[in-house]
Amino acid sequence: MIKVGIIGATGYAGVELVRILLRHPQVTLTAISSVSFEGKPIAEVYPSLREITDLACQNADEVVHTCDVVFAALPHGLSQDTAKACADAGKKFIDLGADFRLDDPDAYESWYQSDYRYDELHKRAVYGLCEWFRDDIRNTDIIGNPGCYPTSVALGLAPVLKNKLVSPVGIVVDSKSGTTGAGRKPTQTTHFPDCADAFSAYKVASHRHTPEIEQTLSKLAGEKATITFVPHLLPVNRGILSTIYARLHDGVTEEQIAAAYDAAYINEPFVREMPKGQGVNIRHVQCSNYCDIQWYVDRHTGLLVVTSVIDNMVKGAAGQAVQNMNLLFGLPEAAGLDMIPIAF
Amino acid sequence: MIKVGIIGATGYAGVELVRILLRHPQVTLTAISSVSFEGKPIAEVYPSLREITDLACQNADEVVHTCDVVFAALPHGLSQDTAKACADAGKKFIDLGADFRLDDPDAYESWYQSDYRYDELHKRAVYGLCEWFRDDIRNTDIIGNPGCYPTSVALGLAPVLKNKLVSPVGIVVDSKSGTTGAGRKPTQTTHFPDCADAFSAYKVASHRHTPEIEQTLSKLAGEKATITFVPHLLPVNRGILSTIYARLHDGVTEEQIAAAYDAAYINEPFVREMPKGQGVNIRHVQCSNYCDIQWYVDRHTGLLVVTSVIDNMVKGAAGQAVQNMNLLFGLPEAAGLDMIPIAF
Amino acid sequence: MIKVGIIGATGYAGVELVRILLRHPQVTLTAISSVSFEGKPIAEVYPSLREITDLACQNADEVVHTCDVVFAALPHGLSQDTAKACADAGKKFIDLGADFRLDDPDAYESWYQSDYRYDELHKRAVYGLCEWFRDDIRNTDIIGNPGCYPTSVALGLAPVLKNKLVSPVGIVVDSKSGTTGAGRKPTQTTHFPDCADAFSAYKVASHRHTPEIEQTLSKLAGEKATITFVPHLLPVNRGILSTIYARLHDGVTEEQIAAAYDAAYINEPFVREMPKGQGVNIRHVQCSNYCDIQWYVDRHTGLLVVTSVIDNMVKGAAGQAVQNMNLLFGLPEAAGLDMIPIAF
Amino acid sequence: MIKVGIIGATGYAGVELVRILLRHPQVTLTAISSVSFEGKPIAEVYPSLREITDLACQNADEVVHTCDVVFAALPHGLSQDTAKACADAGKKFIDLGADFRLDDPDAYESWYQSDYRYDELHKRAVYGLCEWFRDDIRNTDIIGNPGCYPTSVALGLAPVLKNKLVSPVGIVVDSKSGTTGAGRKPTQTTHFPDCADAFSAYKVASHRHTPEIEQTLSKLAGEKATITFVPHLLPVNRGILSTIYARLHDGVTEEQIAAAYDAAYINEPFVREMPKGQGVNIRHVQCSNYCDIQWYVDRHTGLLVVTSVIDNMVKGAAGQAVQNMNLLFGLPEAAGLDMIPIAF
Repeated sequence: MIKVGIIGATGYAGVELVRILLRHPQVTLTAISSVSFEGKPIAEVYPSLREITDLACQNADEVVHTCDVVFAALPHGLSQDTAKACADAGKKFIDLGADFRLDDPDAYESWYQSDYRYDELHKRAVYGLCEWFRDDIRNTDIIGNPGCYPTSVALGLAPVLKNKLVSPVGIVVDSKSGTTGAGRKPTQTTHFPDCADAFSAYKVASHRHTPEIEQTLSKLAGEKATITFVPHLLPVNRGILSTIYARLHDGVTEEQIAAAYDAAYINEPFVREMPKGQGVNIRHVQCSNYCDIQWYVDRHTGLLVVTSVIDNMVKGAAGQAVQNMNLLFGLPEAAGLDMIPIAF
Repeated sequence: MIKVGIIGATGYAGVELVRILLRHPQVTLTAISSVSFEGKPIAEVYPSLREITDLACQNADEVVHTCDVVFAALPHGLSQDTAKACADAGKKFIDLGADFRLDDPDAYESWYQSDYRYDELHKRAVYGLCEWFRDDIRNTDIIGNPGCYPTSVALGLAPVLKNKLVSPVGIVVDSKSGTTGAGRKPTQTTHFPDCADAFSAYKVASHRHTPEIEQTLSKLAGEKATITFVPHLLPVNRGILSTIYARLHDGVTEEQIAAAYDAAYINEPFVREMPKGQGVNIRHVQCSNYCDIQWYVDRHTGLLVVTSVIDNMVKGAAGQAVQNMNLLFGLPEAAGLDMIPIAF
Repeated sequence: MIKVGIIGATGYAGVELVRILLRHPQVTLTAISSVSFEGKPIAEVYPSLREITDLACQNADEVVHTCDVVFAALPHGLSQDTAKACADAGKKFIDLGADFRLDDPDAYESWYQSDYRYDELHKRAVYGLCEWFRDDIRNTDIIGNPGCYPTSVALGLAPVLKNKLVSPVGIVVDSKSGTTGAGRKPTQTTHFPDCADAFSAYKVASHRHTPEIEQTLSKLAGEKATITFVPHLLPVNRGILSTIYARLHDGVTEEQIAAAYDAAYINEPFVREMPKGQGVNIRHVQCSNYCDIQWYVDRHTGLLVVTSVIDNMVKGAAGQAVQNMNLLFGLPEAAGLDMIPIAF
Repeated sequence: MIKVGIIGATGYAGVELVRILLRHPQVTLTAISSVSFEGKPIAEVYPSLREITDLACQNADEVVHTCDVVFAALPHGLSQDTAKACADAGKKFIDLGADFRLDDPDAYESWYQSDYRYDELHKRAVYGLCEWFRDDIRNTDIIGNPGCYPTSVALGLAPVLKNKLVSPVGIVVDSKSGTTGAGRKPTQTTHFPDCADAFSAYKVASHRHTPEIEQTLSKLAGEKATITFVPHLLPVNRGILSTIYARLHDGVTEEQIAAAYDAAYINEPFVREMPKGQGVNIRHVQCSNYCDIQWYVDRHTGLLVVTSVIDNMVKGAAGQAVQNMNLLFGLPEAAGLDMIPIAF
């Protein structure tokens, strides 16, 4: 059994990792850490875990020391030192934060106001969008697990960008996320009376996932992609729906588009193309590692509209991280990820 | 006191009209009708109204007969005959449905699969977007009250289209509406277990409000406007947020945009421009007749992003209808509409 | 116009007072205060109030100084000094907190861990349950506005206790409240992801409203009443439903019970008895000052089951406080309180 | 592998069975049926199941014919013939409906307005409350799977009734259930705009689960138990919380109560006693087969207050049914039921 550890286990992404890894048939969840709850059993923080695990939070060093692979679910800026410690100790490292996602040091430093350290590690790090960078992932030991919004957007657009069916310039990305994306720490915005029955856009055209999305779309398109990205806060817990508007190149047919999506995803275990007439819904993927995609051609304006849904905490965080771990260790890619979405 | 009546009073728009008109200082709610509940007190249908009104549902003819002005909240296709009856009887008529919104008979017939009858009435009918067609409204007796989505979009974009600061072509309109927009009749989509914690797009690039929005934007722009319109269903009751993406003309400055919005709305009683740094939220307008607007320039892609919120049942239906009534009768435009949005 | 002020205006009860008082025809909201937001316009704290009021938060002294009547919506323990300042300045005082609700100093000090100061003021203070202590309210200048749970329970049980139809001993009170009752300050319990889709009991048989409820029920019954009180947190914003179980005295008939409720409430403007067959629902009273009541006899066990609903922020706080103000000043009791509950 | 089938697979309990059985290591979900969707793949009814199962709905006879054990999730009255068919064909039968729960034919017929047929089958049928009737379950082939409310109440009260620590007479059961308990068919009550932000009691002291609860409590107590049962509808999807009030016998100590619960549940895989200070919450058991219990002594009134939570669709329906199947076949009782509750 592979020994796995989680640094930052009491945040939402961390505890979702706990849920998945405890049921993964080829790993043992060996150690977890939390700065806020060091010394405390995680079942005291999450009573849902009572009688399921006795694991108590240790410190980060102990996690690195005792495990073969370390997941970090930390605020940005804090993962680099952990990555270094893992690298020095010969442990694999999967970062659920933002530290290893951007290739461009300047972009990282300007968007995250944090230092870009350990160049060598950044060079080894692979962006863990499994469906598109699988081979690179298999050959590294440091993963920058994609952000939640970027995952929904990249999976949704990749086939048509790759096949040059749409323009990579001026793409509009209108995303809506459940509240768990904002983390476990209470704030006024996520205070129930302020958040329930509410709906708003935030960080309009200024969200930190913008450069990450553009980087990935550019790689897929083979040319510079630009987006206007507007995230919104949905009064639900789990789920992201991204509605994406891209300009179709002249003469592109629906058959070409369908062929591009089929070629990309027909054998993918976690991407489901919806049949025509069936829209996507965050409900259909909640508590699972699926990404559901549906697309529409608006001939009237020449746009392709792509809708893509994921559970932001699973495919958008913990589930994709485990999928990356499976790739890193040569396990079946879907191992431990056979959760069936809840029907209600 | 002006005698007012409502045909279709037991639907959601109808009962919201009841709530507003019962507190309007210059009118008497005299008669209401409902096909489903004829003969029944409305307080039996909506227990919230117990001891507030004794009004019972009559038939439509009785409403037309006894009132000076008639509101109709009916499925499309059914309002034209009522409009005719009102016109023949010399009563003013305000249609909350879709029958008197579209100028183009062909567009109406193809989008609504209904006959476009009584040409003369359609010619007299004015599209009741009060802030922009106030003078025409004052001089007619038939109002096509704007749809909920179109209200949010037109108010949001009008100043920059009117001032030719953005292109009217290829505008992306990504709208999100609360569930009351789907009406009072239970369906699988709005069944609580299916709708709660869910979020989806629907009628992508094929919603009936598309031609209505394009017609209004074209009038405001003075040239043909085209949009890609994608509505979404929010798991809340009240509220629409439209996120609108339009291409800025070259060289347009933020000062010009601000000036356009100020010129349009600074004296409007029901349109609030948010100060920079303050986003809009459906929560801030719920149960009121306000439309809140905030805009952003994305220099990176050259787009103007406008966010606009209304309560779909008030400014998007019953409230705007009463505002139109006030204009029709020369009352103060805000009479009966001084509801303060709920803070939570 | 009567000049009114609010100390603690930016909490939920405070801002609900603002909403009501701004539309009250016989008062002018003259001054408001807030410790957290001193100097700031309240419309910056609650954007829903933009363009509706320019009032900015001052300090408490300024409110007392400039107003004829002062509402305080403060944490317990803090209202007594304000009451003293009002009394010294000859201003009327309405406390929405707990400081002036309990007659027994020991009960207050042991349940609230606060000193019971200014005995004379406590003696003058009247418990502001308008429907039952109206005459006393008219003859004082200090009001202890009832707690939200106690209001729902006392109104629900008063007629049968007063008429000695049920035993006052061993009453079970199972109450469910919306989240606004927990206040505006973010906490883990009211963090949206933790609170949505959740439901729990809290402070089982140990909530501070227990002695207040027992005090009122004892007064109404004319003998010592005892209750087991269990509050629960509902994932909604507004509303309390209390389900109350009391033992019927032998031989009591449904006719006697109905007569007791009718005698008590048939002329009350804000208490609605539901007709048989129609249950109560928090939805039917939201955003209004109503209390709806329905009762049932369970002959099988000899219990009377009473269900009672209020909007915890209106009848359970701000609305009842305004009703008390109306009584204090000899205004029509319903002045400014004609809000129609939202239908959805 | 055991071949299992589901009759009524497209209702909520049915589809939850599908989710559980597809992941059960010792069974093959072989056939499903649905009257409404015969011939249709279940993944078309529940898009969440796309690419997970190809099963299409057949008719009930085919299910009985092809399977070793049949689950029925049908409206009451319809399961008896299916039970007969299974018995005749030598198949085991687990009824998630109400037909095999009540021992008393008269009680069944008066509460359900249905005929009590096939006496011999009713005699063989065992009430499937696994924790308390495990031995009987192992020795039968027909199970009446307990109702959702009765499960939460019986598990909560059994230890203290069994040990005669509380009186079985006049117990108050105040239960709150999520909306999935009302089924998949849209109704006005469960229409999102009517149900969201709403809360109400229903079928007060007249719900059909009353005789079932009393029957079970009487068996456990060894004497006649009576209850006043009031269910309420919570605006959430999953979960029941029952708050139960029972009179403590004189002199009973907290130690005795704790000992009774420990003795009953310390080794039970699916019942969790919460440590003192930790309340139960429907959130902590959602999507799992757990029942969490906490209790409180109110010395002031001499009542024991027990709070008990389950996921109404898992422990209250599909999960408990699978637990019963495991017992019927001598499998490990927790097989296929190791779902970890969602943390959010």
